[in-house]
Amino acid sequence: MKPCIFNMSWFSGEKKEKWFYDDIRGFCCGLEIRKVLYSKKSKFQKIQILQSKSWGRVLTLDTTIQTTERDEFIYHEMISHVPLFLHPNPKNVLIIGGGDGGVLREVLKHKIKKAVLVEIDGDVIKASKKYLGKIHCNSFYDKRAEVITGDGIDFVTKYKNAFDVIIIDSTDPVGAAEGLFTDKFYKNTISALRQDGFLVTQSGAIFAQWEEFSKTLKKMKKFFEYVSPYLTVVPIYPSSFWSFTIASKNFDFKKQPMLRIEKKYNMLKKKLKFYSPKIHQGAFAMPQFIVENMGK
Amino acid sequence: MKPCIFNMSWFSGEKKEKWFYDDIRGFCCGLEIRKVLYSKKSKFQKIQILQSKSWGRVLTLDTTIQTTERDEFIYHEMISHVPLFLHPNPKNVLIIGGGDGGVLREVLKHKIKKAVLVEIDGDVIKASKKYLGKIHCNSFYDKRAEVITGDGIDFVTKYKNAFDVIIIDSTDPVGAAEGLFTDKFYKNTISALRQDGFLVTQSGAIFAQWEEFSKTLKKMKKFFEYVSPYLTVVPIYPSSFWSFTIASKNFDFKKQPMLRIEKKYNMLKKKLKFYSPKIHQGAFAMPQFIVENMGK
Repeated sequence: MKPCIFNMSWFSGEKKEKWFYDDIRGFCCGLEIRKVLYSKKSKFQKIQILQSKSWGRVLTLDTTIQTTERDEFIYHEMISHVPLFLHPNPKNVLIIGGGDGGVLREVLKHKIKKAVLVEIDGDVIKASKKYLGKIHCNSFYDKRAEVITGDGIDFVTKYKNAFDVIIIDSTDPVGAAEGLFTDKFYKNTISALRQDGFLVTQSGAIFAQWEEFSKTLKKMKKFFEYVSPYLTVVPIYPSSFWSFTIASKNFDFKKQPMLRIEKKYNMLKKKLKFYSPKIHQGAFAMPQFIVENMGK
Repeated sequence: MKPCIFNMSWFSGEKKEKWFYDDIRGFCCGLEIRKVLYSKKSKFQKIQILQSKSWGRVLTLDTTIQTTERDEFIYHEMISHVPLFLHPNPKNVLIIGGGDGGVLREVLKHKIKKAVLVEIDGDVIKASKKYLGKIHCNSFYDKRAEVITGDGIDFVTKYKNAFDVIIIDSTDPVGAAEGLFTDKFYKNTISALRQDGFLVTQSGAIFAQWEEFSKTLKKMKKFFEYVSPYLTVVPIYPSSFWSFTIASKNFDFKKQPMLRIEKKYNMLKKKLKFYSPKIHQGAFAMPQFIVENMGK
């Protein structure tokens, strides 16, 4: 990752307009920034909460934009509701990462018994609690939520056959999140997952991070019978065409019981801004250029 | 539109890395640039062809990125094939704008009789012919293609009931393209369209250009019985979540004969990288936040 242009220009006073640029392999997204609300070098990374001109508050970790108040619902709904609607009756959910509380908020919209969130960086949770109320919506304080500051890699080793859905809402496979992309972690995660459970992970941008996408898919296929990427658009991530990968030992994604999904959806519809059964189906439609390159 | 940061830094020699930034309302996309291959101030706009680090050649008009060799197929396939597959038997197609030849290339994949391209800026066609061979793929020289340098606004007044599909592949509603967004132009275009024809236009980015999207939709609804937006992702346009709007006097989009589309698709499948009937269906799935705000 190249140094962030923002870091160079923010304090120089040379330009009237201040931008935070998130760049990867010759492509970048930038947001015009009005104010730095919070900035801290934690044990793991540099955490910033910025007030942008037109995308609300922004959480950045090191040189990358993690989420904005304006478009966060797309990422958070799509990573959460695809597995939670596919599962006939999810009761116990594990979220690894997700310290901003957005995934937790979406998970709690379902009639689940318990959601455990394991975030490695306690400072991310602290900053989010204070500055990102519009994202976590007090989900941290829900009776069904257990919020743990700790390493997801260690956490999963303690559980066997315990979770219906495991959501990996991590940063990219560098730094603190690197261990979340190893064989060992996948093996332990599968042990923690129930036989009929679902694992879902963010798997990078199709154009800017093809290698990460491709590697995640290959790795998942080593451990699961049924694996499928699904796609959406996350405007503030560089190149925006975003992938998740979902896996199951027993469930064939091509045989989706859409009627059951639609029935469940009708009960939650009013609480959702992006996800719908039709969007769900559309997300699994793979363009030919992806299908052809998926093994490469 | 703010001044392009690229224009300020490119010649200064202060930074090693050179970027072209396309920014709109506090959000930007940027591409790292290796070389300026072509640069001309035409009668209408500043045209540049740039060699980027990782997205191939790039066409820019004034301060906006129009297309890159790497992701152009998404935009060009989606604006062309949705109307061309919906129409049972398209013979005569009109393209307004589209001087890079990408839409023309896609249109000619169908068994049509004639495709007329009317581009206001002859210099865009000249530059594209010379530098963007990977985009136009010699479509300009196809026997079924008629390439006209002229104003689409005047052009459509000369035709009545003449075209099966009209594609408006314009820049945003500022400068040369402004007239393409007026009531008068829509009225004349409808006269040029056959009774059972389709009009499709790019209608802007959902997040960065909501006003443009909303206005286009309202205007189309004034003149057509059936109007629907459809969505895709264009990585290099700021905020990427991209809309097209398609309209017809007679055809209800909710009653899509998907079987017929699939049959036609199977014959063209090998020539397409992005479009498929499933992608087509998915593109019409509107997230709730769009549905709710569509009248606003």
